[in-house]
Amino acid sequence: MFRPEIKVLDCSIRDGGLINKWQFSDELVRATYQALSDAGVDYMEIGYKASRSQFNPKEFGKWRFCDEDDIKRVIDGIESDMKLACMVDIGRVEENDILPVEQSVFDMIRVACYVKDIDKGIALAEHCMGKGYETTINLMAVSTNLEKDIDEALIELSKTKIPYVYLVDSYGNMYSEDITCLVKKYMKALPGKTIGIHTHNNRQLALSNTIQAVIDNSNILDASVYGIGRGSGNCPMELLLGFLKNPKFNLRPILQLIQDYYLPLNKEVEWGYIIPHMISGMLNEHPRAAIAFRDTADKDNFVKFYDMLTTPETGEIKKKN
Amino acid sequence: MFRPEIKVLDCSIRDGGLINKWQFSDELVRATYQALSDAGVDYMEIGYKASRSQFNPKEFGKWRFCDEDDIKRVIDGIESDMKLACMVDIGRVEENDILPVEQSVFDMIRVACYVKDIDKGIALAEHCMGKGYETTINLMAVSTNLEKDIDEALIELSKTKIPYVYLVDSYGNMYSEDITCLVKKYMKALPGKTIGIHTHNNRQLALSNTIQAVIDNSNILDASVYGIGRGSGNCPMELLLGFLKNPKFNLRPILQLIQDYYLPLNKEVEWGYIIPHMISGMLNEHPRAAIAFRDTADKDNFVKFYDMLTTPETGEIKKKN
Repeated sequence: MFRPEIKVLDCSIRDGGLINKWQFSDELVRATYQALSDAGVDYMEIGYKASRSQFNPKEFGKWRFCDEDDIKRVIDGIESDMKLACMVDIGRVEENDILPVEQSVFDMIRVACYVKDIDKGIALAEHCMGKGYETTINLMAVSTNLEKDIDEALIELSKTKIPYVYLVDSYGNMYSEDITCLVKKYMKALPGKTIGIHTHNNRQLALSNTIQAVIDNSNILDASVYGIGRGSGNCPMELLLGFLKNPKFNLRPILQLIQDYYLPLNKEVEWGYIIPHMISGMLNEHPRAAIAFRDTADKDNFVKFYDMLTTPETGEIKKKN
Repeated sequence: MFRPEIKVLDCSIRDGGLINKWQFSDELVRATYQALSDAGVDYMEIGYKASRSQFNPKEFGKWRFCDEDDIKRVIDGIESDMKLACMVDIGRVEENDILPVEQSVFDMIRVACYVKDIDKGIALAEHCMGKGYETTINLMAVSTNLEKDIDEALIELSKTKIPYVYLVDSYGNMYSEDITCLVKKYMKALPGKTIGIHTHNNRQLALSNTIQAVIDNSNILDASVYGIGRGSGNCPMELLLGFLKNPKFNLRPILQLIQDYYLPLNKEVEWGYIIPHMISGMLNEHPRAAIAFRDTADKDNFVKFYDMLTTPETGEIKKKN
């Protein structure tokens, strides 16, 4: 699959930080930046920009805040053509925290929002565009929305100049036919915009859903190293680069990065194919129930978790026993 | 995805035995038979039928031979509508080992063969049909064949009454467009036959390739519990049953089986998402190099393995160091 327009965005630190409260060492983040640069990846999303008034810096690592100085220090001296991105959530960032682009190390700001919050999402994205950033709207959890509500959000988006709109399979529930249906819907509603794809791997469909989006003409693709991300994680970068035929991509630095950093990390911090997260994806549920369950002594009692989600009264009874 | 014609075949013991020389306990095989029966799975392939003159019974477990008495003992007393299958390889089974179907516990015999051996495969399959079995031809490793050779094999198959022909992605190399291309080719060349799909999970595409085959009208689907199988393993049964909409399937017994048997087993015996097997799938290679590499002290040196396969001279030099 070769199409020169295709861009790849790494979200390892941002999405992976949801597992460990962004407590990644500078060394790991620097090695990730170096390897992604060498691999020819187009963008690295290095964390969230968030207000310190809302998150305690003693609890959350620096990639929760993405201070310009922290980022500059960690990438200092590495030659790279890769652009830097960060994510912002509605209501969790102060507008003053966002510098004009010419004073910032960031090139892109991605706005995550739910369909119900589309107006707030657009306002925040337009604020970022006004400061000169490439800007995306990542419309989360659409597998739980009525189609008419998605359509209305797309109409609002079509009135803006925001260049990128992402299809996000937040719950890892979709398969190829869902992707095609929604990517085509986004394309039709948003002529001239680039459609992105962000998948989760609950049902081992993150790569194939990303491939399907490419077939359907999505041109900006999210992935993460060794699939790191909350719960089942994301589309693994090594699989995506191994699939894309563009010779600008180089798999070898990613393999080195995995063996040096992400394989050891995965022994300490859980992500990947985990049955409660598979069940949660299959049932189109937010991962919070699976995350909570994996923190109990019963974490490998898959039947108990399945019963809790499918027959809550049974689950409750079992919980009491 | 609901189509009443769709049948699901479990190959956990047969394909999984390639990892541990079929040294599964009777208890595990019995629990697997019980759970698959309760889950509504249509067929269970319980091993290979092979000649004791070719495999030492001291080295290989009983599921390498599939003696009728061993099978009868292990399923004794379990109520089940599930049919039993075994696999045979050309040249590794004596025709006298195959009883007439009315004296056998088996309903189906599957013949694995390469395109180059199609005539021998057909002869063996027809021998099994003559003894009354449902019979399949599983055409292996077609991702390495020239299309004209596949076409010739399909012409030979079209002259037979063998009812099932499988598309097999032996090396875990294919993605959705390959599946569609080949399933359609098989369908066109083999009117009236049922096309099966057997995938491997090297690139995390086993489920999505199986779904794609269903979309393309394949009606017999292989899967294995928790994906057990050589290297990266197969399409996980729990994902497949969770995807298929037919109410006859029941996921719960499979979840119980995984937590009781296959999760603990996977801690002792390696299968799943393993980077050298991912590389091997991406490069369309037989898993033997990855299997051998995983047996060395360097097993997590992914870059070394990648270099060995992509630049053999470099790999050799590194090997000497």
